[in-house]
Amino acid sequence: MNDAITFHARYRGKLEMRSKVPVANRHDLSLAYTPGVAKVSQAIAQDAARAYTLTSKWNTVAVVSDGTAVLGLGDIGPAAALPVMEGKAVLFKEFGGVDAIPICLDTKDTQEIIAIVKAIAPSFGGINLEDISAPRCFEIEKTLKKELSIPVFHDDQHGAAIVVLAGLINALKVVHKDMSEIKVVVCGAGAAGIAIANRLLAFGVKKLLLLDSKGIVSADRSGINSYKRAVMEKSTLQARGGLSEAMIGADVFIGVSKGNIVTKEMVQSMATDSIVFALANPTPEIDPKDAHAAGAAVVATGRSDFPNQINNVLAFPGIFRGALDTRAGQITEEMKRAAAETLARWVKKPTAEKIIPDPFEKGIAKVVALAVKQCAK
Amino acid sequence: MNDAITFHARYRGKLEMRSKVPVANRHDLSLAYTPGVAKVSQAIAQDAARAYTLTSKWNTVAVVSDGTAVLGLGDIGPAAALPVMEGKAVLFKEFGGVDAIPICLDTKDTQEIIAIVKAIAPSFGGINLEDISAPRCFEIEKTLKKELSIPVFHDDQHGAAIVVLAGLINALKVVHKDMSEIKVVVCGAGAAGIAIANRLLAFGVKKLLLLDSKGIVSADRSGINSYKRAVMEKSTLQARGGLSEAMIGADVFIGVSKGNIVTKEMVQSMATDSIVFALANPTPEIDPKDAHAAGAAVVATGRSDFPNQINNVLAFPGIFRGALDTRAGQITEEMKRAAAETLARWVKKPTAEKIIPDPFEKGIAKVVALAVKQCAK
Repeated sequence: MNDAITFHARYRGKLEMRSKVPVANRHDLSLAYTPGVAKVSQAIAQDAARAYTLTSKWNTVAVVSDGTAVLGLGDIGPAAALPVMEGKAVLFKEFGGVDAIPICLDTKDTQEIIAIVKAIAPSFGGINLEDISAPRCFEIEKTLKKELSIPVFHDDQHGAAIVVLAGLINALKVVHKDMSEIKVVVCGAGAAGIAIANRLLAFGVKKLLLLDSKGIVSADRSGINSYKRAVMEKSTLQARGGLSEAMIGADVFIGVSKGNIVTKEMVQSMATDSIVFALANPTPEIDPKDAHAAGAAVVATGRSDFPNQINNVLAFPGIFRGALDTRAGQITEEMKRAAAETLARWVKKPTAEKIIPDPFEKGIAKVVALAVKQCAK
Repeated sequence: MNDAITFHARYRGKLEMRSKVPVANRHDLSLAYTPGVAKVSQAIAQDAARAYTLTSKWNTVAVVSDGTAVLGLGDIGPAAALPVMEGKAVLFKEFGGVDAIPICLDTKDTQEIIAIVKAIAPSFGGINLEDISAPRCFEIEKTLKKELSIPVFHDDQHGAAIVVLAGLINALKVVHKDMSEIKVVVCGAGAAGIAIANRLLAFGVKKLLLLDSKGIVSADRSGINSYKRAVMEKSTLQARGGLSEAMIGADVFIGVSKGNIVTKEMVQSMATDSIVFALANPTPEIDPKDAHAAGAAVVATGRSDFPNQINNVLAFPGIFRGALDTRAGQITEEMKRAAAETLARWVKKPTAEKIIPDPFEKGIAKVVALAVKQCAK
């Protein structure tokens, strides 16, 4: 991966600003800037909504991170998070036509992050929260959604949950099982794990076990945060123990934790025609070959070099495209569900090797955006 | 100026983000984003300076405003300030090759603005403060300069002061007067007025009167802020009264206040070969024709439709270009002085009609940047 260093050093940044207007002479300048722009400012001062038609606000999203949960690297700080946020912004543009601006924050204080995002909101049509550690990310998103009138979306939660749901809808078609009957194990109770569990429970899953670093989250375990507790209160299944215990008889394993923590024996202990989503990056919870050898019928990972890549880029560009185009005040639960169902439907005949679209298939963001727009109406 | 509304509505924003890197396939994606980017993040986590060679930080400036002193419109709020900040960003790019990002803040609290700018600094190579009302702008800039290691520049102060000094150097050549002997009246004690006064006093002016809305600022007047007091403590001239009294015998009038407040009689009361910079926008303090008729030898305005336009765009693009290219931690007083002298020297043979370059003459930002770079070494 030293290739990536060379690549980044060659471009010295993956983004640049481009002026959409001509500034070749005094006349241009008098329209784009002073004195003409004063009239535009006055128009917006009288009617704030005109910022959407007279400035770039309608298409501009802040990609906000405090650098506390960057990729699998953890709390590496805001400067080190910057190349990731630039990459995210590149994907926003290339896949969704959205102008995204990396904002890396030199603070980890939950209330300060909330105050900053509220304060910078006038420049932006939406806020994409990124790589902020749990459980702070939950409070930050919840508060901002309540207090801002532009869409706020924590991609590590909802992007992941939408694509996992899409993949699972199709994987269940392949093995002929029903959402309401399966037993699901979600391993990892950070932003992605909590959001995936909540999305599946909202979509019809009844039996779900959530595991954190201490094992199965049970309602009677002491010291668990309210977000983990809320998940388990919605599941009809309760248990104690670790991953080995959780996996016995499970139909679906979804890992958003660490590499190599699932053994062949664990997969063998699952129900027949089991589904394994080993999404830890870069090293999956179990090697796909081992998972298949141990009896898994469908395997997905977060990697592009195996079949069935669960990749957020399938969701967030289209979701923001749709929300921005309809000037939606929020990205609702209904929109997220519609996005997942749309992604699932994209794959006409799901097979064990193809439960989810490839990010480079043309038009995906467009249909996701359309699904979001229909919900917004 | 309804042309400007039409113009803005046509483009729907004057800026967009552009990806500098290819993202056409999985390989591209693996370099620009995951998994490759993890290596880049780790490199920056180990050595924060590498953000300058591996991300866009080296060329990215935040254009920060709270919308409290926008053009001549006053406190119109952050949303209404956005088209002005976009225009500024367009000029940054077109004239200086700098990628500037508008950040309009929904707070007027001095300490909160300071905290926010400090927090967002990791994404940026410099901070351009814009259209923040005095005297808050002074404390905000002073504190940020002290606490951040990237350049912080309040253009309404220093951009204006640099270009005024450049123009005055040449105007004095035209009338054969000396900086150390002239009497200067600066009318307007906001961000620009204070900065202009300080810059001229630092450059050799000794006799200067500063006027605010209540008249001449004198050391013994009650209730004046410390910034105005500091100006007057550096002047050898003290007086009381209003603009009429101040103008008597003055060699130079510099207005950064309101339109039509200077009468022909006032100009007639000035010294022979007087210099009038009537910089209020869009209406100058006195019409240039009237000023000339009343005896002014050299007249400048802020407008592009009269000779001698005092325009900040002559300064800020080159100043940031030079500061970014040398990774200067500050834009120093020496750099500002050098920028002014460079702009003055650009005009080979100053005349009454030509004391300052036209912004569209090619290469100005480059020579200003060079002057800044030489100071940085």
